[in-house]
Amino acid sequence: MLRVPFSEGPLTEEQRTRLQQLRRQLAGDCIRSTTLATCGHPGGSLSTLDALLTLYCGATHSPEQPLNAERDRIIISHGHITPGVYSTLAAYGYFERARFMREFRHAGTDFGGHVEFGVPGVEWNTGNLGQGLSAGTGSALALQRQGRTARVFVLMGDGEQQKGQISEARRFAVKFKLNNLIAYIDFNRLQIGGDIAQIMPQAIADEWRAAGWHVVEIDGHDLDAVRAAFSAAYLEPRDVPTVVIGRTVMGKGIPFIENQAKYHGTALSVEQAREALQILELEDDLDSLLADRAAFTPTRALAHHRSIELPAIDTGTPRDYAVGVKTDCRSAYGDALADLALLNNQTELKVVGLTCDLKGSVKMQRLDKESPDAYIECGIQEHHAATLAGRMSVEGIVPFFSTFGVFAIAEAYNQQRLNDLNDANIKIACTHCGLDVGEDGQTHQSIDYLALGHGPYNLKIFVPADPNQTDRIIRYAAAERGNMLIPMGRSKLPVIADADGQPFFGGDYRFEPGKADLLRKGDDVTVVCFGDVSWRAVQAADELAPELSVRVLSMASIRPLDTASLVEAAQQTRAMISYEDHNRDCGLGVQVATALADAGVATRFRRLGSHFYGSSGEPDALLAEQGLAIEDLKRACRELAG
Amino acid sequence: MLRVPFSEGPLTEEQRTRLQQLRRQLAGDCIRSTTLATCGHPGGSLSTLDALLTLYCGATHSPEQPLNAERDRIIISHGHITPGVYSTLAAYGYFERARFMREFRHAGTDFGGHVEFGVPGVEWNTGNLGQGLSAGTGSALALQRQGRTARVFVLMGDGEQQKGQISEARRFAVKFKLNNLIAYIDFNRLQIGGDIAQIMPQAIADEWRAAGWHVVEIDGHDLDAVRAAFSAAYLEPRDVPTVVIGRTVMGKGIPFIENQAKYHGTALSVEQAREALQILELEDDLDSLLADRAAFTPTRALAHHRSIELPAIDTGTPRDYAVGVKTDCRSAYGDALADLALLNNQTELKVVGLTCDLKGSVKMQRLDKESPDAYIECGIQEHHAATLAGRMSVEGIVPFFSTFGVFAIAEAYNQQRLNDLNDANIKIACTHCGLDVGEDGQTHQSIDYLALGHGPYNLKIFVPADPNQTDRIIRYAAAERGNMLIPMGRSKLPVIADADGQPFFGGDYRFEPGKADLLRKGDDVTVVCFGDVSWRAVQAADELAPELSVRVLSMASIRPLDTASLVEAAQQTRAMISYEDHNRDCGLGVQVATALADAGVATRFRRLGSHFYGSSGEPDALLAEQGLAIEDLKRACRELAG
Repeated sequence: MLRVPFSEGPLTEEQRTRLQQLRRQLAGDCIRSTTLATCGHPGGSLSTLDALLTLYCGATHSPEQPLNAERDRIIISHGHITPGVYSTLAAYGYFERARFMREFRHAGTDFGGHVEFGVPGVEWNTGNLGQGLSAGTGSALALQRQGRTARVFVLMGDGEQQKGQISEARRFAVKFKLNNLIAYIDFNRLQIGGDIAQIMPQAIADEWRAAGWHVVEIDGHDLDAVRAAFSAAYLEPRDVPTVVIGRTVMGKGIPFIENQAKYHGTALSVEQAREALQILELEDDLDSLLADRAAFTPTRALAHHRSIELPAIDTGTPRDYAVGVKTDCRSAYGDALADLALLNNQTELKVVGLTCDLKGSVKMQRLDKESPDAYIECGIQEHHAATLAGRMSVEGIVPFFSTFGVFAIAEAYNQQRLNDLNDANIKIACTHCGLDVGEDGQTHQSIDYLALGHGPYNLKIFVPADPNQTDRIIRYAAAERGNMLIPMGRSKLPVIADADGQPFFGGDYRFEPGKADLLRKGDDVTVVCFGDVSWRAVQAADELAPELSVRVLSMASIRPLDTASLVEAAQQTRAMISYEDHNRDCGLGVQVATALADAGVATRFRRLGSHFYGSSGEPDALLAEQGLAIEDLKRACRELAG
Repeated sequence: MLRVPFSEGPLTEEQRTRLQQLRRQLAGDCIRSTTLATCGHPGGSLSTLDALLTLYCGATHSPEQPLNAERDRIIISHGHITPGVYSTLAAYGYFERARFMREFRHAGTDFGGHVEFGVPGVEWNTGNLGQGLSAGTGSALALQRQGRTARVFVLMGDGEQQKGQISEARRFAVKFKLNNLIAYIDFNRLQIGGDIAQIMPQAIADEWRAAGWHVVEIDGHDLDAVRAAFSAAYLEPRDVPTVVIGRTVMGKGIPFIENQAKYHGTALSVEQAREALQILELEDDLDSLLADRAAFTPTRALAHHRSIELPAIDTGTPRDYAVGVKTDCRSAYGDALADLALLNNQTELKVVGLTCDLKGSVKMQRLDKESPDAYIECGIQEHHAATLAGRMSVEGIVPFFSTFGVFAIAEAYNQQRLNDLNDANIKIACTHCGLDVGEDGQTHQSIDYLALGHGPYNLKIFVPADPNQTDRIIRYAAAERGNMLIPMGRSKLPVIADADGQPFFGGDYRFEPGKADLLRKGDDVTVVCFGDVSWRAVQAADELAPELSVRVLSMASIRPLDTASLVEAAQQTRAMISYEDHNRDCGLGVQVATALADAGVATRFRRLGSHFYGSSGEPDALLAEQGLAIEDLKRACRELAG
């Protein structure tokens, strides 16, 4: 297939003719694929096709090694233009065209309706608009800090420009001088509902200029103009990133669908498709394609996992916090993270910390001071920062993303969901979780993070119970693959001791996902807890010891959950209490209940947790307000054991 | 207290002197309140104080009737400046100053760390930055469409300008010509982490200009300049809204804290506070205030509910869909909504529909055509639109907010959470939920909405099982108070019939929250289901009837849940299966398990649901991929009953 590196200058006449021919062929495949699937998005595919072809013709990439570290990244933000993207990737040898024709939008295959990385050549799953530029900045920043010369292209729609996250990403790219980042806007003036000027008027070029980008406006169907714009940005980067705005025509090349918003997301009928193929002077092979598709039954497994190699991480020597010392988990986190950065970033950048204007609160001061390259200040832009961090993680860097729980997972939930869909490796180490947020009040109380954390299938949830366990979980998280949510509170906590008064989580303790921590043995009542309230459960158990034998199971690993220990406890003790400073209708309690119900085991069971919007105050006062003070727990133990 | 309506022109010298004196006194209260609480945000309070005072001096408002419909709305977006806001509100008679001094950031009181509407005069809970302007547009649009002349002021911070949601709100305000909206930016150049130009460089004024706003830049501590800027926008609105950017000094008036980012969020020590009071030439009453606070014990109940009167809604006559007719719930929704708008908006606007570039998909075409004033196209700006809708709901309009589930509740989760904290009355009627999204694929499959829906305490969740039930739930939702999540799928569904073949949800059926629908009686196995899969459960039960007696409980009301019917079924049948096209680890199954565990009841129990990221395809194929086909359910029934 035609490859003319940008460095070779303008296309020759012969090259241009070949690219135009290719364009015509791929336009046909955009039509064929959507007609075969009876659905999909031909309109934007045809308007973006010239930019796509120009890129795959001129950029550095390899179908043999789609994840080669030196490739130029091409990220498709308007993920619905799969027909254009898959057509182009097939033409450039990433997979068989016949496979695309058969499998597009067919259940049981990787060829989804929006771009997904299960298809070779696709960098990032999108389709929820506005996230692609943030993903692109993730690659651009990683490449910049790794000293690689590859470029990052991000293709976007024009309707998509309405998303606020783009304004955040734009700003970030200028701050970090990401001149290896080149954005392209397919300005076809139509979104699904109609004219962009009617749906939501916007001075797109002015906005990008105001954000400090270099703006180039061109005819997006003029292959020479597109190539010239990309080449200039590619070969002679300015101080700031470049955005190319291509004026295009939705449905370009098929006059009877051109400029009609309807064809944003409507396939042509078979008859219309035949007419389109005739206009394009292409073979009408629809009958054989239809037959091929009708005969197709999926057999491949879905490609939900990336083969990217993650960096080997030295987890160093755990820090020990002595019994009697009060430290906050976030400080233990900050120290573990700074340790990891010092230890691992000697020759290349492997561990980074990102925050959103809360460096002090999330304890990244030491990281910033000792490893300034590893500290990334994203501003108050959580949507952008979450996607950025997720994308950096598939560029071989382990990102710890830290802000308050309400911002890290509630505000940026959908970004974290897409990170999970992208098989990323982000560590969401968020602070100020539960009722332990200081006196900031309701709006800052993150008491729903377990509900949110159970949404994305592959997100693990680890909530440390004290500074020692925090240290060990952070080191574990840095070295092990997977998306992880690590919520912490704000306050200084006692170091949890075992029955002999030694640090329970110190010394040789090793964090193991899916394993409960038996903080106290007991036969009468089981208290299941986690995080900030675990030491309180221990204190309640110790104080009740003369009258009641209370088992304390601390579930640092909320997901996966140690259901065996729960079922065993339900069978061995007379009652079970879940105890949490989290909304009790969607937190640990419901997961404990589920473990019991799944096992067909019943016991006397009570869920203690937050159950209304409370006030501003210190943790003890707020716990008392919700009936969660140590005395409340003791009373519940007595009642249930009685 | 000094009141000089904007219409009276510039301040006289005497008025200016009085306002300056007041400013000095309130600066003292900003210092006192934070020192008394030992925490809080004095810096931004002092930089915003002149704007606050100018507004409460010049705008129309009434401490006697804080929710008077004709008042000017003053919305504080940078919610941490409570010391400034509460000082000003106390001075203007909204509550006793002594109460503020005693209760600020004290557990058990309404005087939270960030502005909350439990404090009289506060319009909207914020503190999660970037949402205030969207709330302001909600008021501005409501006032515009209600024909009221009141103005809406939104005060923001400068760091906050980084949030993408602001760019969305800005655009929306221009589109709808909300010239009754006046924004103010406290440009003190510091955010919590330091200089805004270091944290995230941004050309703030340029961005607002590019968005089409009229931009006025002034000295934010010059009371005449602030008044002149507000007065001009207030008295002679242009075609577009106005933003006033006030150059200010963080900590203004206390030289030893001025321009220090530390005092964004740090209270002065008692000794420092004494010094500050001396500088301000104010009485040092700290000792008596400290004593008063120490002696204080909260006795009031928290004011979590607004007293706003909602419009009386005529729910009209339900539409009946006959057995045998296949209709999608979203079409039934669109028709019910259009009916409600026609019926209720004759003399004033009571019911509106908002969407984000998905009018066709969410079936608002009829609403737009028949009641164009009631249809609000928000563009692809879900964060903004969610807040906008929430705020409109407390302006006496019932908003139906509709887009795909992934955008309505996953993308905008935190906005919906704040709507709930604000005791709003939003109806989130989202479509394309569950696996029933057409061939759009993983990124568009909303299979976590029940997890998210359980986060906000007061959000009710109603999932209709067929078009008849959809119609009745929508009519119910329009008339009843409260935030409601109403998810629907995409496909045409059979109308569910009772055992006699009559429409189960037609005719006299009345939707009742917290009540299960017993679709089929049965003694062997209970299938608990909801939404799109309920008809499938009925079909399974009917097909199994010769061999097994299957009870089908359809839970349209997921929250509140009919736990009594569940416990009864667990006791009366031999096994229970939860059946849903939702992530089974955070959906109906875990709520059923919780109901059983809470009751101490065990049974043979299995949770059928989605459990991995699947592919693109039609609902039947995707259900089969997850083991959720009707045959799978039948097999499970046989296995568990066996």
